[in-house]
Amino acid sequence: MIQFEALFKISYGLYIVSSGNKSKGNGFVSNTFFQVTAEPPMFASCCNKDNFTANLIKETNAFSVSVIHKDTDPDIIGRFGYKSGKDTDKLSGLNIKYGETGVPIVLNDCIAFLECRVVQTIDLGTHYMFIGELIQAELVDDTKEALTYLHYRQVRKGVAPKNAPTYIDKSKLGENKKGSGLKKYECTACGYIYDETEENIKFIDLPDDWVCPVCGSEKSDFIEIL
Amino acid sequence: MIQFEALFKISYGLYIVSSGNKSKGNGFVSNTFFQVTAEPPMFASCCNKDNFTANLIKETNAFSVSVIHKDTDPDIIGRFGYKSGKDTDKLSGLNIKYGETGVPIVLNDCIAFLECRVVQTIDLGTHYMFIGELIQAELVDDTKEALTYLHYRQVRKGVAPKNAPTYIDKSKLGENKKGSGLKKYECTACGYIYDETEENIKFIDLPDDWVCPVCGSEKSDFIEIL
Repeated sequence: MIQFEALFKISYGLYIVSSGNKSKGNGFVSNTFFQVTAEPPMFASCCNKDNFTANLIKETNAFSVSVIHKDTDPDIIGRFGYKSGKDTDKLSGLNIKYGETGVPIVLNDCIAFLECRVVQTIDLGTHYMFIGELIQAELVDDTKEALTYLHYRQVRKGVAPKNAPTYIDKSKLGENKKGSGLKKYECTACGYIYDETEENIKFIDLPDDWVCPVCGSEKSDFIEIL
Repeated sequence: MIQFEALFKISYGLYIVSSGNKSKGNGFVSNTFFQVTAEPPMFASCCNKDNFTANLIKETNAFSVSVIHKDTDPDIIGRFGYKSGKDTDKLSGLNIKYGETGVPIVLNDCIAFLECRVVQTIDLGTHYMFIGELIQAELVDDTKEALTYLHYRQVRKGVAPKNAPTYIDKSKLGENKKGSGLKKYECTACGYIYDETEENIKFIDLPDDWVCPVCGSEKSDFIEIL
């Protein structure tokens, strides 16, 4: 038996993985980045094949990883987590540094970054796993704590987007409803659920300038769900 | 430039990864276990080639992962993290369940477990990365928080053993010493440092039944270091 709730006990960080170059760069929010060997220091990053950044990593054979902190601006998560770089220049207006391989490194809300050169690409069906040798690492701000996936889910009420390795279809989770007449509203951009049974204010009574606490989308981007 | 302190900002959990069968089983403490695809749910686990469990995983083509909680008994971490299954039966006396593939699953201090069948083995030089398809997952205790590598390092003052993917030689880290005449003592089993500059009591004045807070080794297992 597979009880999908068990998977929430696995710990992850949250990162912006970027690739490309000065003329064409992109990045995405990832929770699957981790060290795989110590000598030499090598790291793995999983990336959905549909992801625009996956193609840039294949082209440039390199990627950067920005570790973001707990109070990261929701706009950063919304921009990199729930929008595609096919339609928009995600790096526009941000504080970007270019690495030794020429890949962009996002410095906004970043407490540390790493740059890796790809040495192996593993086909995992829906995803690629890029194995990269570390060529640069810098601690930017030691005073702030890294954002973890647990904090993102529990405190910021975020959910994994559909192409994340850790995406879980809600129908696979056990239900635990309170029959109350209160409603739920879902952010069409990021999937965040505003659940009136857990809030002090009805969705309709939220101010017009209220935005999604996860991705910064507007109130009008929400739909009522069953 | 590689600033190794940056690597501490990457988030990991801590797990006991086990393999083998009823007559010969073993496990080790791992921080590199993570989901790599959602459909089908697949997971990756990195394991040093010298690790006794690595050979058991290759023989049985399966492994289990126990997520352990924040207050896990130091004996469990000492037993699985810093001793080899070549010399000792690590599972002896523990609460073990056997999975659908026959691999042992450690239930002591476990809040959730997963069982995977290996579908791909990737050679990473010093380590293997085993890619496993999920065949079983169970949430055992939803009231306790998972132990993270950050909590292990910061609160429990643990260090990664030499064959971990995230092992960092202390000489690679920037030094930040206070010249005080106070001494440091290292646990020869797990590498934990008792640093008198950060403690209220000198090492020599600790009671004889004091044990290493990380792995449970005795006071006599410590040596003075420079």
